[in-house]
Amino acid sequence: MTKGETGGVPEEPAQSKKAAKKLQKEAEKAAKKAEKQAKLAAENQAATEEDVAKDRYGILPLIQSQEKLDRVLVHVKNLTEEKADQVVWLRSRVHTSRAKGKQCFLVLRQQQFNVQGLVAVGDHVSKQMVKFAANISKESIVDVEGIVRKVEQKIESCSQQDVELHIERIYVISAAEPRLPLQLEDAMRPEAGDEEGRATVNQDTRLDNRIIDLRTMTSQSIFRLQAGVCQLFRETLIKKEFVEVQTPKIISAASEGGANVFTVSYFKTSAYLAQSPQLYKQMCICADFDKVFCIGPVFRAEDSNTHRHLTEFVGLDIEMAFNYHYHEVVTEIADTLVQIFKGLRDRYQTEIQTICKQYPCEPFKFLEPTLRLEFPEAVAMLKEAGVEMGDEEDLSTPNEKLLGRLVKEKYDTDFYILDKYPLAVRPFYTMPDPHDPKYSNSYDMFMRGEEILSGAQRIHDPQLITDRALQLGIDVEKIKSYIDSFRFGAPPHAGGGIGLERVTMLYLGLHNIRQTSMFPRDPKRLTP
Amino acid sequence: MTKGETGGVPEEPAQSKKAAKKLQKEAEKAAKKAEKQAKLAAENQAATEEDVAKDRYGILPLIQSQEKLDRVLVHVKNLTEEKADQVVWLRSRVHTSRAKGKQCFLVLRQQQFNVQGLVAVGDHVSKQMVKFAANISKESIVDVEGIVRKVEQKIESCSQQDVELHIERIYVISAAEPRLPLQLEDAMRPEAGDEEGRATVNQDTRLDNRIIDLRTMTSQSIFRLQAGVCQLFRETLIKKEFVEVQTPKIISAASEGGANVFTVSYFKTSAYLAQSPQLYKQMCICADFDKVFCIGPVFRAEDSNTHRHLTEFVGLDIEMAFNYHYHEVVTEIADTLVQIFKGLRDRYQTEIQTICKQYPCEPFKFLEPTLRLEFPEAVAMLKEAGVEMGDEEDLSTPNEKLLGRLVKEKYDTDFYILDKYPLAVRPFYTMPDPHDPKYSNSYDMFMRGEEILSGAQRIHDPQLITDRALQLGIDVEKIKSYIDSFRFGAPPHAGGGIGLERVTMLYLGLHNIRQTSMFPRDPKRLTP
Repeated sequence: MTKGETGGVPEEPAQSKKAAKKLQKEAEKAAKKAEKQAKLAAENQAATEEDVAKDRYGILPLIQSQEKLDRVLVHVKNLTEEKADQVVWLRSRVHTSRAKGKQCFLVLRQQQFNVQGLVAVGDHVSKQMVKFAANISKESIVDVEGIVRKVEQKIESCSQQDVELHIERIYVISAAEPRLPLQLEDAMRPEAGDEEGRATVNQDTRLDNRIIDLRTMTSQSIFRLQAGVCQLFRETLIKKEFVEVQTPKIISAASEGGANVFTVSYFKTSAYLAQSPQLYKQMCICADFDKVFCIGPVFRAEDSNTHRHLTEFVGLDIEMAFNYHYHEVVTEIADTLVQIFKGLRDRYQTEIQTICKQYPCEPFKFLEPTLRLEFPEAVAMLKEAGVEMGDEEDLSTPNEKLLGRLVKEKYDTDFYILDKYPLAVRPFYTMPDPHDPKYSNSYDMFMRGEEILSGAQRIHDPQLITDRALQLGIDVEKIKSYIDSFRFGAPPHAGGGIGLERVTMLYLGLHNIRQTSMFPRDPKRLTP
Repeated sequence: MTKGETGGVPEEPAQSKKAAKKLQKEAEKAAKKAEKQAKLAAENQAATEEDVAKDRYGILPLIQSQEKLDRVLVHVKNLTEEKADQVVWLRSRVHTSRAKGKQCFLVLRQQQFNVQGLVAVGDHVSKQMVKFAANISKESIVDVEGIVRKVEQKIESCSQQDVELHIERIYVISAAEPRLPLQLEDAMRPEAGDEEGRATVNQDTRLDNRIIDLRTMTSQSIFRLQAGVCQLFRETLIKKEFVEVQTPKIISAASEGGANVFTVSYFKTSAYLAQSPQLYKQMCICADFDKVFCIGPVFRAEDSNTHRHLTEFVGLDIEMAFNYHYHEVVTEIADTLVQIFKGLRDRYQTEIQTICKQYPCEPFKFLEPTLRLEFPEAVAMLKEAGVEMGDEEDLSTPNEKLLGRLVKEKYDTDFYILDKYPLAVRPFYTMPDPHDPKYSNSYDMFMRGEEILSGAQRIHDPQLITDRALQLGIDVEKIKSYIDSFRFGAPPHAGGGIGLERVTMLYLGLHNIRQTSMFPRDPKRLTP
């Protein structure tokens, strides 16, 4: 209180109303101050007070392999009623935390699974420990020890709905920075139909911070299922006695005429990145490997910024010698895809359900045997639906999609083969149809109206392939070693290439191929 | 006979000696001529004579899928005594042929298997057919029908030793040009020890004509076994709950400082080819995939022209989060390799035996559990053997080989782990040893004295890795997204990368990595 405020010295005990009010205010202030000080003192006392749990929480030093420890850590997915009342250790991320008085609820996440944890003041848990737990930044990795307890009401927000974990020790193994570039809850929210208008995360933010985006239960499920596609592809083909081969990605000449190919500087010369393993797969056939497959990157320098183009993707490639008719190969390829669809349905139901929560979608339908249409039938169906097109014109992307809908309506399948494309719209190495030179022994396969495989019987005669290359204006000198591979006896053969990311995307009914490529590459994106 | 030659008209019957001789000569000439004419006439008669087998041989038109044919073709490997006296069809290459009077022996080859075939004049086989068969160029593909016959004496030169095929029909499906750039018999001959000094084929001729070289039973076996390495690698890791991931090969920044990296022109900018999937594998770990593997091409722009370097090879990569000590990971990697060795031994014995015929080699030895030496122990062993080297000096290639021999002598194993390399000789992201900062938590694995895997615990702390990068003069701006991936909680992890071609080469005791890469790439070779 400054001198000026109190005025002069009071003369009389009789107080003015104003003065009384003033005194009261001062008294109140003093009381508040005292209260505040008392509270602070109490807090100081609590702080210095013996913490009964002081060894039960904390930040551990960086794990540098200081010692071997044979502690068994359980997996979150295994926290079920059978484990009730057991003491367990686990390592997980802090997905969310919510402190409330003397307790703190943590959701502990491990890959596609999460469980509710509770740190509550009690015999082994101090107020300080609750406070410590509540302050752990989201996405930090913690080791916790706790007792598994059955809950009376299912915990709808967690994958482990029947139990929660009563935490008795909690240590931070690796702390996340407090400010995350995106929130996992936002990243896992369905994009459409949130009535509360809550935030979702746009694609560039996701991709810029891919390692966090990949942690969502949706992403975890997508890429585990994608690993399943590869595994099922190989499993099926190995059963069919195919041999896995490795083909070079750096090549000396652009395989299909030189368009859309990336150039590599190669010591004192330059080379290209393979747009497809096709020529090499075919050489394997000419080298007596009979039936081959390969899985590897494929590079396309196309400046296409669409939902379904990448500049680098993973090709699942098949090439096979046949005896008399290329349909022997078509049947094997279609069956391989059917085995993939069945395997995904039977082995990855948990992942499919998880993904459906964020991106709802009809289950993928397919027939056995696979529906095979011929190109003229497709043109007729499209014409009947009002499309104007020529008989030997290639299908545009919208027409492919329309055809997919027409086929679905008529045959109730999301997967079919379109056979016998016009020769004019296929590459030079495609075998012409023996009965009608306007058509060819070539085929595409479609999932939900989008192309996932392109293939053909290849010309295996050196003279015919030279003639076809010359007709299409291809410099035969540049593909000499390819043509030469047919000069020393070559069996008739056919094959095809499948885009892995497209199969995953279309099986799951997703709408952008960047969702099924871990670190997608397009004309505008090279990082992370 | 011309006028000048006969001279004038003969006057007298009395003949001179000279004239008599002349006449005799003329008679002989005439007789020869008559004989010749008779022979020609007989031949003409035979040619025009009805060929009883004329529908049983010939050159078929190009197989363009004209018709479906449900003829069953047997595989050469299935031609055994159980098939004796059965009529079978098969498609194979003409490996060699030898005509002898009224019969022709053909060796028919299919991949790693071959069988003797016989075309002999008889009820269904004409002389013309034998001649046709004898004239088929080597490496042509034929369809033959024949009767399987048990032979009395084993046919040592064929894989099918107990039977031969009595051919009754033979059609050429695809003819090889008569002049082959290399002979398969030469290409399959052991390089050393041929006392008769017969031709072998040098490596460049092999690689220039790779599709023919790959047809040898040795090459067929090498690459089938190599497919087995990949399959066993995946099988083992999938059992251990690893997830397969796909990492990008086109990257925006050179991962390990920028040396030895290929540059790619990428639309209006430039990019690089990944020297290893390591940073991406690690990001997968930071993104909660826990245990990952990938198989894919790895690119090294090293101008190394050695027996064991390629500019493009196939990496079998592993990365794994661990709980407390990186040896948890080392154990898993070593076990994975042991499972590969066991699987090759148990499933690929036929291939191993076939390869051994051309490239003899001691069977690959390994211990269980795998021998683990620490770097100082290796230095001590080398010093004891007379090598002069510093304690923290890296092993030179000759020292690695010598160490391999010392280890083999002492422990009788071709496979071991060398752990705890000096920190100074490892990359910046290697975790220092917690007990001795001169060493690190890193390891190499060796087969027959050559390195096949390099790995380490990685630093998972953003501050420590920044410090280490700066200490080693690395531009941390360029690896920002890598460092950032540790900012939001990262589990301790370790991993390693295995070179597929090296594993195949060293398991089989081969001496050049080009033998185990189908289409090898080195500083001087980009084709085929």
